Amino acid sequence: MEKFVYSFNEGNKDMRYVLGGKGANLAEMTKIGLPVPFGFTVTCQACNKYYEDGMTVSDDLVAEIMDKLAELESVSGKKFGDPDNPLLVSVRSGAPFSMPGMMDTILNLGLNDDSVKGIAKLTGNERFAYDSYRRFIQMYSDIVLEIEKKKFDVIFDGKKEEKGVSQDVDLTADDLKEIIEDYKKLVVAEMGKGFPEDPRDQLMEAVLAVFRSWNTPRAVLYRELNNIDSSLGTAVNVQEMAFGNMGDDSCTGVAFTRSPSTGEKKVFGEFLVNAQGEDVVAGIRTPQPMEEMANTFPEVYEQFLKIAELLETHYKNMQDMEFTVERGKLYMLQTRDGKRTAQAAVKVACDMVEEGLITKEIALTRVEPDQIDMLLHPNFSDEALKNNEAVAKGLPASPGAAAGHIYFTADDAAAAAAEGKKVILVRAETSPEDLAGMVAAEGILTERGGMTSHAAVVARGMGKCCVAGCSAISPNEETKTMTVGDMTLKEGDFISIDGSAGNVYVGELEMVEPDLSNDFAQIMEWADEVRTLKVRTNADNPTDSAQAVKFGAEGIGLCRTEHMFFGEDRIKAMRRMILADEESERREALKLLLPYQKEDFKGIFEVMEDRPVTIRTIDPPLHEFVPHTDEEIKVLADEFGLDFDKLKNRVNDLKEFNPMLGHRGCRLTITYPEIAEMQGEAIILAAIELKKEKGLEVTPEIMIPLVGNVKELAFVKKRVVETIEKVFEREGESVNYIVGTMIEIPRAALTADEVAQEADFFSFGTNDLTQMTLGFSRDDTGNIIREYEDLGIFEQDPFQTLDQTGVGQLVEMAAQKGRKTKSNLKLGICGEHGGDPASIEFCYRTGLDYVSCSPFRVPIARLAAAQAVVKEQLNTQADK
Amino acid sequence: MEKFVYSFNEGNKDMRYVLGGKGANLAEMTKIGLPVPFGFTVTCQACNKYYEDGMTVSDDLVAEIMDKLAELESVSGKKFGDPDNPLLVSVRSGAPFSMPGMMDTILNLGLNDDSVKGIAKLTGNERFAYDSYRRFIQMYSDIVLEIEKKKFDVIFDGKKEEKGVSQDVDLTADDLKEIIEDYKKLVVAEMGKGFPEDPRDQLMEAVLAVFRSWNTPRAVLYRELNNIDSSLGTAVNVQEMAFGNMGDDSCTGVAFTRSPSTGEKKVFGEFLVNAQGEDVVAGIRTPQPMEEMANTFPEVYEQFLKIAELLETHYKNMQDMEFTVERGKLYMLQTRDGKRTAQAAVKVACDMVEEGLITKEIALTRVEPDQIDMLLHPNFSDEALKNNEAVAKGLPASPGAAAGHIYFTADDAAAAAAEGKKVILVRAETSPEDLAGMVAAEGILTERGGMTSHAAVVARGMGKCCVAGCSAISPNEETKTMTVGDMTLKEGDFISIDGSAGNVYVGELEMVEPDLSNDFAQIMEWADEVRTLKVRTNADNPTDSAQAVKFGAEGIGLCRTEHMFFGEDRIKAMRRMILADEESERREALKLLLPYQKEDFKGIFEVMEDRPVTIRTIDPPLHEFVPHTDEEIKVLADEFGLDFDKLKNRVNDLKEFNPMLGHRGCRLTITYPEIAEMQGEAIILAAIELKKEKGLEVTPEIMIPLVGNVKELAFVKKRVVETIEKVFEREGESVNYIVGTMIEIPRAALTADEVAQEADFFSFGTNDLTQMTLGFSRDDTGNIIREYEDLGIFEQDPFQTLDQTGVGQLVEMAAQKGRKTKSNLKLGICGEHGGDPASIEFCYRTGLDYVSCSPFRVPIARLAAAQAVVKEQLNTQADK
Repeated sequence: MEKFVYSFNEGNKDMRYVLGGKGANLAEMTKIGLPVPFGFTVTCQACNKYYEDGMTVSDDLVAEIMDKLAELESVSGKKFGDPDNPLLVSVRSGAPFSMPGMMDTILNLGLNDDSVKGIAKLTGNERFAYDSYRRFIQMYSDIVLEIEKKKFDVIFDGKKEEKGVSQDVDLTADDLKEIIEDYKKLVVAEMGKGFPEDPRDQLMEAVLAVFRSWNTPRAVLYRELNNIDSSLGTAVNVQEMAFGNMGDDSCTGVAFTRSPSTGEKKVFGEFLVNAQGEDVVAGIRTPQPMEEMANTFPEVYEQFLKIAELLETHYKNMQDMEFTVERGKLYMLQTRDGKRTAQAAVKVACDMVEEGLITKEIALTRVEPDQIDMLLHPNFSDEALKNNEAVAKGLPASPGAAAGHIYFTADDAAAAAAEGKKVILVRAETSPEDLAGMVAAEGILTERGGMTSHAAVVARGMGKCCVAGCSAISPNEETKTMTVGDMTLKEGDFISIDGSAGNVYVGELEMVEPDLSNDFAQIMEWADEVRTLKVRTNADNPTDSAQAVKFGAEGIGLCRTEHMFFGEDRIKAMRRMILADEESERREALKLLLPYQKEDFKGIFEVMEDRPVTIRTIDPPLHEFVPHTDEEIKVLADEFGLDFDKLKNRVNDLKEFNPMLGHRGCRLTITYPEIAEMQGEAIILAAIELKKEKGLEVTPEIMIPLVGNVKELAFVKKRVVETIEKVFEREGESVNYIVGTMIEIPRAALTADEVAQEADFFSFGTNDLTQMTLGFSRDDTGNIIREYEDLGIFEQDPFQTLDQTGVGQLVEMAAQKGRKTKSNLKLGICGEHGGDPASIEFCYRTGLDYVSCSPFRVPIARLAAAQAVVKEQLNTQADK
Repeated sequence: MEKFVYSFNEGNKDMRYVLGGKGANLAEMTKIGLPVPFGFTVTCQACNKYYEDGMTVSDDLVAEIMDKLAELESVSGKKFGDPDNPLLVSVRSGAPFSMPGMMDTILNLGLNDDSVKGIAKLTGNERFAYDSYRRFIQMYSDIVLEIEKKKFDVIFDGKKEEKGVSQDVDLTADDLKEIIEDYKKLVVAEMGKGFPEDPRDQLMEAVLAVFRSWNTPRAVLYRELNNIDSSLGTAVNVQEMAFGNMGDDSCTGVAFTRSPSTGEKKVFGEFLVNAQGEDVVAGIRTPQPMEEMANTFPEVYEQFLKIAELLETHYKNMQDMEFTVERGKLYMLQTRDGKRTAQAAVKVACDMVEEGLITKEIALTRVEPDQIDMLLHPNFSDEALKNNEAVAKGLPASPGAAAGHIYFTADDAAAAAAEGKKVILVRAETSPEDLAGMVAAEGILTERGGMTSHAAVVARGMGKCCVAGCSAISPNEETKTMTVGDMTLKEGDFISIDGSAGNVYVGELEMVEPDLSNDFAQIMEWADEVRTLKVRTNADNPTDSAQAVKFGAEGIGLCRTEHMFFGEDRIKAMRRMILADEESERREALKLLLPYQKEDFKGIFEVMEDRPVTIRTIDPPLHEFVPHTDEEIKVLADEFGLDFDKLKNRVNDLKEFNPMLGHRGCRLTITYPEIAEMQGEAIILAAIELKKEKGLEVTPEIMIPLVGNVKELAFVKKRVVETIEKVFEREGESVNYIVGTMIEIPRAALTADEVAQEADFFSFGTNDLTQMTLGFSRDDTGNIIREYEDLGIFEQDPFQTLDQTGVGQLVEMAAQKGRKTKSNLKLGICGEHGGDPASIEFCYRTGLDYVSCSPFRVPIARLAAAQAVVKEQLNTQADK
């Protein structure tokens, strides 16, 4: 018979899929001899069987649970419902992967009219006992019996009114007993039967409630969003209670084996005296730092430090631990790999390699690529810090600096950010409902909560700056104002926050480039050793190009040429070109643009030296270059000596219903080949001049965009090549160059075998490819995408992370068909997905040669590319 | 050794790929004993070898040609260059398929200073001989030597001036001799050597000129446009001259074995006395009808009638013949399958089955589906014809009636048509340059040219109405006017033309529905017997539905529901719905729309009876339903009691940059599921009421549009199904229904295996699928598509004929993946390609169940679907 219940001494850490993450680690800690309150775990498979059996529980399972309960009673020396020495347990869900949306913890299960007396006796605190009982009934009724919590609140508040007290603590034990009686009556009225007095019934019902919670809508949604297999099921952990709230010799806390902020090798965390664990996480009382334990609980502290080191060595990763001290005795309640800031992740990874704990390959997997962003962004300048005084100080909850307009609700913050504003979200404290606002914000500032509060944890995860527990501020989301001392700031006012120091400033402080650590350089060096995918950047000016080179870019994957047309002198020539009636006029105007373009390219080539540079010929629709208001058109008409009406008509002619699918890309250079010819000439002249002047050997890669049919590419390529051949002849000098295309139209991917006949390279323009493959205009469908994410229709924003199921098929198809025609076809990606780690892994698997992304994402891409290799190695090893 | 030259008595009609179409038929006519001037054909393979050998001719080929020439001399009893009895030949290109853009015919080859004397002697007409020689030099120099024609014109016109004559015919034989001398000097000056005197040199040069003409840009383009394999090559036909211009006992003509207009079984054509063949085709002189030959050439006419019948029986198809009578002797110069009007095609096909010449399957292939359009469109009403007098009469060149604004150049006509105007193109005569204007026009009217003139032939091919040779009009493309008698019409004026009667009317005449012939019904009946693909229609009202049923529609493949929202009362409720802030307000407004929608559906169901009806839920973006000008918004604001600014903001919010890729289709019904619920309820209520009231069993097919992700479909389907189940319960009655989706987003095709899990059917929305797969907005890219067609980048407009290479891949993929998930998945197409014959053939090959098209294209689709089956059968037979 399959075993469905494991005592903590029967499992280990590798049994995550049987015992869940929490259960496996509790078993492991038990196994290695740590002080873990005893208990047992009902397996994930039991949960699955429950669903298979039409949501019923077999007698066998009940019997197995009762066996383990008996063992627990024996080990603890306590008995369920014993009025003298009652056993109380906590019941917690624990799936193989951390999963919000499931059942909350039930504490103090086992309390009833008899056992409450035992607790009162054992603690010598009757009020404590009955308050615990009152809370248990309320929690259990809410979670297990699904009776609305507010119905209990009515009773409770009514009793306070009746007794004329305003604070909970002013209610006496007798008051609480009366409340308990009323609670029980409420349960009878709601359920038609009484509150379960038998702790065994309480337990079985709680186990079933955990099973049921596996399929709450929020849990189902979370799994969909995070690609977690629904067939995994959840385990249930039943564990003897340890009380951190039994007096001043008791406490509860959470701690990390190293600093989750800096990575410093030192136990780091906080504890609350005389409290239960949830109080710390909820951030309602501000806890003390762990170091204080050395004073208040010196022996326990020593013991804890040893356990922390042991766990880290054992797990070979930084641990995030929960513990409780009950009357001076330490109990470990949980351990798991700790979340950390980018800075900490990098330092911990490097340190652990140095300490011989992990290999450099494993070290690479220990840094979330997206987190690195944090390390690369600016902090406030010393000058700014010297000249500005902080108006408030909170906890340095997530490092980095940010400045922006303040908003007091997540919705307001998201809306302002959508308008392009930089936003600081200010909240009393945050909850999961604030997530969208946090995503939108540059930084987060909260009034309450500690380093492990929701705001702090989430902000660190996002690599976003956060100042938490800043009690000097008091935000009011009704009036949309906040006070800081005697100052009142209103919505939209500018503040700056320093998440590394915890400081808050009014106004916008100057920022400076970050000084990247040696550890960071080390990680990047390892990443470069491991990865095979090249990393290029998207840049169209020398400054960005230089920045990207500094970050390790190995070339330019996309140099847009149209931005270059917007300079003051240039736009005039550009407009003259666009508004010309005849090819000859257009050629005249293009002649004026040629020297500008040539100088632009020279500047970029010079920065990039011998690195490859892919230059895209003109792409956007021409109407983007002309003015649109009557006044502007009037000015232009006067300037060009044109008739206003004629000019206005011409401008109107350029308007399109769906410009995304209109006259742009290669379609422009097919209608006006002279534009591509000018650009080809400018590119090649720039390369030739650098060769002559500096002996620099540049190999420009000329990219024709928006090709859907090989004949389009052939048409434009022919004209560009002919022009270049003429330049070679005229200049008496030549350079190497190649001509390729973007794959951004679905048809180009579908016919990539044909397109490859004319292309030396493909660069996947996954922005447009996503727009067309999904039929989603990026400019119009932001709201729809958010709604789709909320509804679980999209797992993620397909413009952030490549839609591998749909768009990915086209990328794979194009790669295969293209290489079939031309085995040495160079393949890259220049859509924004080129900087997204999940998409980079896909690019690696699909056999692309390089990814290209914005300069600040280059290090992220380097790391992600290395991780893709390591993950593949680990999978291969696992398969063996 | 491969044989590269065939005498006419060595080949037959099946040697099209060796001898070209013309050569094969000349050989066949020779074989069956018809009077064909003797000659030989240089094969297509010789042409290919010429290109393989780097555009050189082998000595072997020269020797082979000379052998055949010797045989021709022997058969004709004449000799090349003989001053007494000279052999003159024509040299013509002849590819396997009729192909414009290649070398024109060279007549009278063999003339030189010696042989011209022989001709003068033999004809007794020195002027005729030297005029022929003069023309030959000019034609040969133009075509073979590539000397500009106008340089010869300068000499010729100079001579006229010198001699003080204005007409060509006033030049004497001596004048012509002087001209010939000047021509020869010009050739020396241009070529550095003299005009080839040796007829053998003339011949070889002419053969090479034909070879070269295979690769003129126009020929290459034509092949690209018509998918003709470039490796076919062209043959060269060398044939003894027959002179139709040797006096009044000579003539030349073209004739059909049956009427190409009506199909009547009677030789039909025209001839010109004392003329060469080109004169008839060019339409410069208006020829006499064939019947007149009974008077002028009674014996020849009898002989010709017998030959015509023999050829038709032999080829089992209506023939288009060219002939020449030289001094009373009939020579056949060409025969080929004759082009015909739709009416003629239908009648000929039916008659030939009746006559036992062909099977009904072959009969089905003898009618071009697109031509049928003609038969279905209206003619002028009797009333209109009685009350209007024709202002001019021309030849009834292509049947049908048309009315429109007159334009005098192809460009003007195309431009006006592009603006949505109905256009009649009026020209002195048409040439291939006028094609775009002819395509754009409703009908064509020419001043000159006969029934076989360019205008007439092309118009019939297009199934477009044409009145030709209407000498009563004189159009002037400079002044953009035309005179008709003493009336002057200007560009844009309205006329009506009757291509069946040849009449021209001023103004717009009333039109009536055509009365379809029994032959047409017969063809359709055969088509229905043969085809397996079902044909449905796109219709969203009872009138169109009834029209489609009359044309044989077997269901509705696409019933759009949004047109229904535009009625006066409805649009108000619709706008109220769109502008509502709350779901409850939307539901109120939708309640008002429900009864309208229900009645709409009832009306359609009633017409369609038990035929399937696919109804698409709301598709277009909401901004299409709201007003946009300030005035209109003001009115609406007053009506709804809303604030103007607020309303204007709401309207502006609905605007999108790329509405094609915006908030529409299922995205609307995901944001506002209540719309789909209302529509589902209206559909089902309509079906239930008809069941209750009339016992009609309707099976509605509910189609959710714009799905790109199975979860979208699942979301909307769930809500619709839940609503329907409630209706069933409430009404105490149920009906069968199915729910499916459009496949119109590339991602839907790529993930069709997933989408099929939720769909009972797929309907390919190839309009949008083409837009997204090609990245072409239909509203914006009309000009680009035309330019692409001109440049040969597109072989055809992808919105007319499905792009099988690109979009077709997605359709095939979706069909396969969908059926893999659900083997009985119903597949159809409802894009406009559903009415395009080539696309229908593709749908048949891809295994679709039905096509759906506009009512007037239903018969076309029925025929095309039958032809797809017959073609497959013929290919299978050919493969055996």
